[in-house]
Amino acid sequence: MVLFPEHRYYGESMPYGSKEVAYKNASCPVVLFGGSYGGMLAAWMRLKYPHIAIGALASSAPILQFEDIVPPETFYDIVSEDFRRESSSCFNTIKESWDALIAEGQKHNGLLQLTKTFHLCGELKKTEDLVNWLESAYSYLAMVNYPYASEFLMPLPGHPIREVCRRIDGCPDGTSTLERIFEGISVYYNYTGKADCFELEDYSDVGTDGWNWQACTEMVMPMSSSRDGSMFQTYDYNFSSFQEECWKDFKAKPRPTWITTEFGGHDIKATLEKFGSNIIFSNGLLDPWSGGSVLKNVSESIVALVTEEGAHHIDLRFSTKGDPEWLIEQRATEIKLIQGWLDNFYQEKKAAFDM
Amino acid sequence: MVLFPEHRYYGESMPYGSKEVAYKNASCPVVLFGGSYGGMLAAWMRLKYPHIAIGALASSAPILQFEDIVPPETFYDIVSEDFRRESSSCFNTIKESWDALIAEGQKHNGLLQLTKTFHLCGELKKTEDLVNWLESAYSYLAMVNYPYASEFLMPLPGHPIREVCRRIDGCPDGTSTLERIFEGISVYYNYTGKADCFELEDYSDVGTDGWNWQACTEMVMPMSSSRDGSMFQTYDYNFSSFQEECWKDFKAKPRPTWITTEFGGHDIKATLEKFGSNIIFSNGLLDPWSGGSVLKNVSESIVALVTEEGAHHIDLRFSTKGDPEWLIEQRATEIKLIQGWLDNFYQEKKAAFDM
Repeated sequence: MVLFPEHRYYGESMPYGSKEVAYKNASCPVVLFGGSYGGMLAAWMRLKYPHIAIGALASSAPILQFEDIVPPETFYDIVSEDFRRESSSCFNTIKESWDALIAEGQKHNGLLQLTKTFHLCGELKKTEDLVNWLESAYSYLAMVNYPYASEFLMPLPGHPIREVCRRIDGCPDGTSTLERIFEGISVYYNYTGKADCFELEDYSDVGTDGWNWQACTEMVMPMSSSRDGSMFQTYDYNFSSFQEECWKDFKAKPRPTWITTEFGGHDIKATLEKFGSNIIFSNGLLDPWSGGSVLKNVSESIVALVTEEGAHHIDLRFSTKGDPEWLIEQRATEIKLIQGWLDNFYQEKKAAFDM
Repeated sequence: MVLFPEHRYYGESMPYGSKEVAYKNASCPVVLFGGSYGGMLAAWMRLKYPHIAIGALASSAPILQFEDIVPPETFYDIVSEDFRRESSSCFNTIKESWDALIAEGQKHNGLLQLTKTFHLCGELKKTEDLVNWLESAYSYLAMVNYPYASEFLMPLPGHPIREVCRRIDGCPDGTSTLERIFEGISVYYNYTGKADCFELEDYSDVGTDGWNWQACTEMVMPMSSSRDGSMFQTYDYNFSSFQEECWKDFKAKPRPTWITTEFGGHDIKATLEKFGSNIIFSNGLLDPWSGGSVLKNVSESIVALVTEEGAHHIDLRFSTKGDPEWLIEQRATEIKLIQGWLDNFYQEKKAAFDM
């Protein structure tokens, strides 16, 4: 049986369609696979239920992105570094763009001008909406910064950040910062070139309502934007403001220490070195979530597989003809480790039977 | 901080009197100690929360006394063997006594005769009440079969089962089976000799109401009484009957697989060999609960300490001048192991600080 815990079972969903079918093969060895939040679930389930699952492949699972375990700047610093490594002028253009946006928005008819510059279908109501639309695009671009053409909201080229920066940098001299930003962001929102205009609302929520509710209850992840390392507006995480937002949005009270109380995270090496086994934490360093993930081996069988050029759980994506050598190798290593868990399971079963 | 989880916190109780005081020293290493059900809690808490507690001493913790992991006869077989090892005639007298009791109870004025033989204060209403009173005494005698004088409901001599059998066997020729039983059982219910008569109700429930409720919900422990190994009436565990009793007593529905689903238990060696660490399972083989406990090392740091002559969590009792050498050694071994966990904790803390 293979569980792929991608998000919890909201509502009525049930693996395999029914409890009966799901339980049918219950004596088989169970290996957990998950990416992102699903990767956290996979790792945590292996830690809490070793008698049920023999191991877990936790891909891009930021189980350390809680409280003060990793610096809160790590996520946006990594997104930003993904742009800087392609081009420092690209990084700088984006970093300068926020002031330019706000200045424009405050001008007489500024919102109308922004509406035109960014080809919005409806008139922009406040600059913040546009800021969010752009920030979201950059963050997702870092996550899906795959070496081959892929699809997220819509089709994307391989190395999409490279393409964004090529466009930002490639505009003729005299092109304004905001026009450059529009050219760049079109890679994300309109790579096919088919869109005539953009509805900010279409992209403001890519099915994240359930996630936002969890972020406002159990999954409280502090996020800041640093002054120098980040290309985003500087921001210091503030729990009180976060709490207020959660109350406003969901009438929910966040429990910022719940995850580490329930699953640990502080001193993870010391805690798990002789505890737990058979977990692979796989991460690509281009992925902003890698900053809150386990990037070093914890023990002989709780291992970290790190790829320099990987993005968000690329190992769990379908293999393609464009897969680079390091990705093919990463998957082979994962399969070898999992095969070892299975061999061990059957050996022990046989040994118990022979006794 | 030392937690001694002896029963869950029913109602309003709180360790150290308040949450504030309990949390005060939260950065100290935590070692869990528990005996019996508390021992199960200690072991399970270490397994589920290795980041909170560095280790557990689980004394007389029958974490395998669920479903079909150990044979259901083990508990009463061990109680019985505790009597047989002292004297086979004692064992036989007790084994014969049930038929004698039931035969007596069915006679005209039989219940009145039993009331007299057993010096009951009020007239016996049904033989079953007397059977339960005796069965309970034998079971508890096996648990508290300590080598020194102790106290359970009332004072007991050292090696109390030896004393019970000395009295049963020592009656003059011609003493009836039931009179012998009464002489024996007086060790448990009246060792001081001060009681003139006995109220069965006084002993029918030694604070076990909360436990019985748990047994009818989560802690479902199958118990049978074997035909040959047991000195009790033969009984085959039957889940349906058990379920009916639970419904009658508490309107509760037992969940017989909940414990193994939540905590495991099947194939414990295979499951925990490379998982979990720092648990001592200590058991005395005279204790009937040892049959459902972990009696073999699971791994290098999940170890079993077994004493031939120990009874129910004797290691967690106060030390006495009468402590035998094996008990002194057992406690020294436990302290040495726990000291090792603490040393390791402080070493890792220092290593993390030095980095």
